[in-house]
Amino acid sequence: MSQSQLKNQYDKIKSQRLNLDMSRGKPGEDVTSLSNGMLNLPGDNFTALNGFDCRNYGVLDGLPEAKSLFAPILGVTHDELIIGGNSSLQMMYDAITRAMLVGVSEETMGSGGWAKQGSIKFICPVPGYDRHFSICESLGIEMLTVSMDENGPDMDTIEKLVSEDDSIKGIWCIPIYSNPTGITYSDEVVRRFAKLKPKANDFRLFWDCAYAVHHLTDTPIKLLNILEECKKSDNADLVYMFASTSKITFPGGGVGFMAASKNNCDFIRKHMGFQTIGTDKLNQLRHVQFFGGFDGIVAHMKKIQTVLKPKFDTVIEILERELAPHNLGTWYTPNGGYFISFDGNEGTAKKTVQLCKEAGVVLTEAGAVFPYQNDPLNRNIRIAPTLPPLEELKSAMEIFCISVKLANDFY
Amino acid sequence: MSQSQLKNQYDKIKSQRLNLDMSRGKPGEDVTSLSNGMLNLPGDNFTALNGFDCRNYGVLDGLPEAKSLFAPILGVTHDELIIGGNSSLQMMYDAITRAMLVGVSEETMGSGGWAKQGSIKFICPVPGYDRHFSICESLGIEMLTVSMDENGPDMDTIEKLVSEDDSIKGIWCIPIYSNPTGITYSDEVVRRFAKLKPKANDFRLFWDCAYAVHHLTDTPIKLLNILEECKKSDNADLVYMFASTSKITFPGGGVGFMAASKNNCDFIRKHMGFQTIGTDKLNQLRHVQFFGGFDGIVAHMKKIQTVLKPKFDTVIEILERELAPHNLGTWYTPNGGYFISFDGNEGTAKKTVQLCKEAGVVLTEAGAVFPYQNDPLNRNIRIAPTLPPLEELKSAMEIFCISVKLANDFY
Repeated sequence: MSQSQLKNQYDKIKSQRLNLDMSRGKPGEDVTSLSNGMLNLPGDNFTALNGFDCRNYGVLDGLPEAKSLFAPILGVTHDELIIGGNSSLQMMYDAITRAMLVGVSEETMGSGGWAKQGSIKFICPVPGYDRHFSICESLGIEMLTVSMDENGPDMDTIEKLVSEDDSIKGIWCIPIYSNPTGITYSDEVVRRFAKLKPKANDFRLFWDCAYAVHHLTDTPIKLLNILEECKKSDNADLVYMFASTSKITFPGGGVGFMAASKNNCDFIRKHMGFQTIGTDKLNQLRHVQFFGGFDGIVAHMKKIQTVLKPKFDTVIEILERELAPHNLGTWYTPNGGYFISFDGNEGTAKKTVQLCKEAGVVLTEAGAVFPYQNDPLNRNIRIAPTLPPLEELKSAMEIFCISVKLANDFY
Repeated sequence: MSQSQLKNQYDKIKSQRLNLDMSRGKPGEDVTSLSNGMLNLPGDNFTALNGFDCRNYGVLDGLPEAKSLFAPILGVTHDELIIGGNSSLQMMYDAITRAMLVGVSEETMGSGGWAKQGSIKFICPVPGYDRHFSICESLGIEMLTVSMDENGPDMDTIEKLVSEDDSIKGIWCIPIYSNPTGITYSDEVVRRFAKLKPKANDFRLFWDCAYAVHHLTDTPIKLLNILEECKKSDNADLVYMFASTSKITFPGGGVGFMAASKNNCDFIRKHMGFQTIGTDKLNQLRHVQFFGGFDGIVAHMKKIQTVLKPKFDTVIEILERELAPHNLGTWYTPNGGYFISFDGNEGTAKKTVQLCKEAGVVLTEAGAVFPYQNDPLNRNIRIAPTLPPLEELKSAMEIFCISVKLANDFY
């Protein structure tokens, strides 16, 4: 295609004044409506199995039946699970502010929390989740980037960093169907994480299993259980795990939860008890009644898979057809999760995103998936295919591919 | 009555093995059931007035119609209101941790937040709310007690303290139907608060209006609007206000919110945006649909008043009958709120609570309403009459009065 042909094609689309959003990991109405049955619950059934009236105060860290529902998602016991409010992000933020102000355990409280130990650092495998990085940035925590491949982060570098520098207090991990790359950590990577011996005794892994049950194939990848592996290495207190139903039921109307060793959870429960009297048990009950049990979640995720699989297939197909033959970018075909991470040629990401925007397609800002919004090679773009209906997604991806070509001066 | 008669009476009740709870400010089933109509909402009506689909991400600080519902409770505009999760206590805790880690405004961020300024202090009018004090204690904030009378806290002392000591960063206030005394701050006290000129430029009033609409009479006390008064004194950023529907609809299943100057709220919204993507809009919608508008809340509180008034009357009647003639204690008859604060004779509170406990009546621990659980005169007991049904409450108060007499060696 000549330059003028491509530009004509672009201008023609631009004139349609489209308004397509591929910027965030939001489900579409096609997914949220699958949970509409929850919207008139709990009705008259507001009593928990143990007789507790869920309309009143009490139960700090989650109803037993809600723990039974969510515990299998992370592979933990009730003692190792804390159910929070509507947001796992908030539980991560609170875990960090708590660690900063009071520490991570009774044993380390003498050191006064991270905030009293001078400047501290987190390791950030890249590309990663922008909201993880903005928590660190907002709290003045320095971020060290580490690269990733299809097996997970560069463990050689991580092992070296944490063993040498006791100002490194944490690392952000999205171990299954990672945001944005879609990769899942290999068993070896998980085991090496579990065996880390950080110099800082108040270091924690922030293990965000946001997409733990969000499979796109019928043969789901199995992530090794980090807490089990940590226990094997006498390292049980190393990890905080997080997940939520935001992308199972309703984003903002779901239930967030975290898991860790009983020792960690007891410390967190104690300090959480100063912060709140308890979380929203009625919403927990709503989820329990809607799903029945973990099998209900698995069946529900199959329905979501049916909606999302064609969207991911469409993105990959169009990328394969339009860009692969011309070496205009690389990507990984994810087996689950919410994103496709596109690595274009160096220096082209910002221009591509800008061209898309002018043609009515909003993408995540280029660089957003790097700490300080700084993609040193200016080449990564996160594609979020879940929100637009399939036909709109096709249009958006056509615009995306034209924009990539224009940004590469490829005609 | 002779000593042996009184002891016999006590032993007789003890043998009944009662199990009565007057320990916490919990509503009974007689109050929570008034909101049962909310339990099957929102049903199919999940779209906000502005077209927003409440089943998905978005809207950081509250739906416009939820702001319209709650703003009149605190007398503020939408810009001055932030709707949170299910707990106003959590908003208070978060306001403090945020102030500790990032500060209270763009202007004061250079100082690095309270946590970077050495040891800091809060003023605590006593008696007060135990959960306010335990937030301070858990975060290592020193508490300075200030006395209260029927008009509010001792303003002479407060004005002196905050003008001289820039390590004093806040004060806990429950300005209407105070926990536990039931008093409401006089107009003069509110105006003196609004005119405070603290030495610390990052000082804030923590103005907890937990009982703002919880009247027990048909001629409610009107609390002066602190934010309006602060504006008049060119002091708009001085105050954070808090409230929730915990004791309007469902404790733990309600909606918490806070209010402050637009300047304060903008700063909080910015940092709240790092903590969460947004709060539970479906629960906000549920409240909007159930109440219709603020008038619906007022009508609902009348129903609650009908349930609670006889309980408060019963407590006061029994105290008046059994203890007043013998100078065994003093109390204030509240016009609203959730508590009656009993001041016994010096040195008798712990023994009274213990005797009640042995006879099957659980009260709040003696001293709980003072910082560090330390009532220097060991005389205050918080009575929470809302949870027990009326007949049980009568039994509990009989036991209470017998216990007071025994603790005083009064026969």
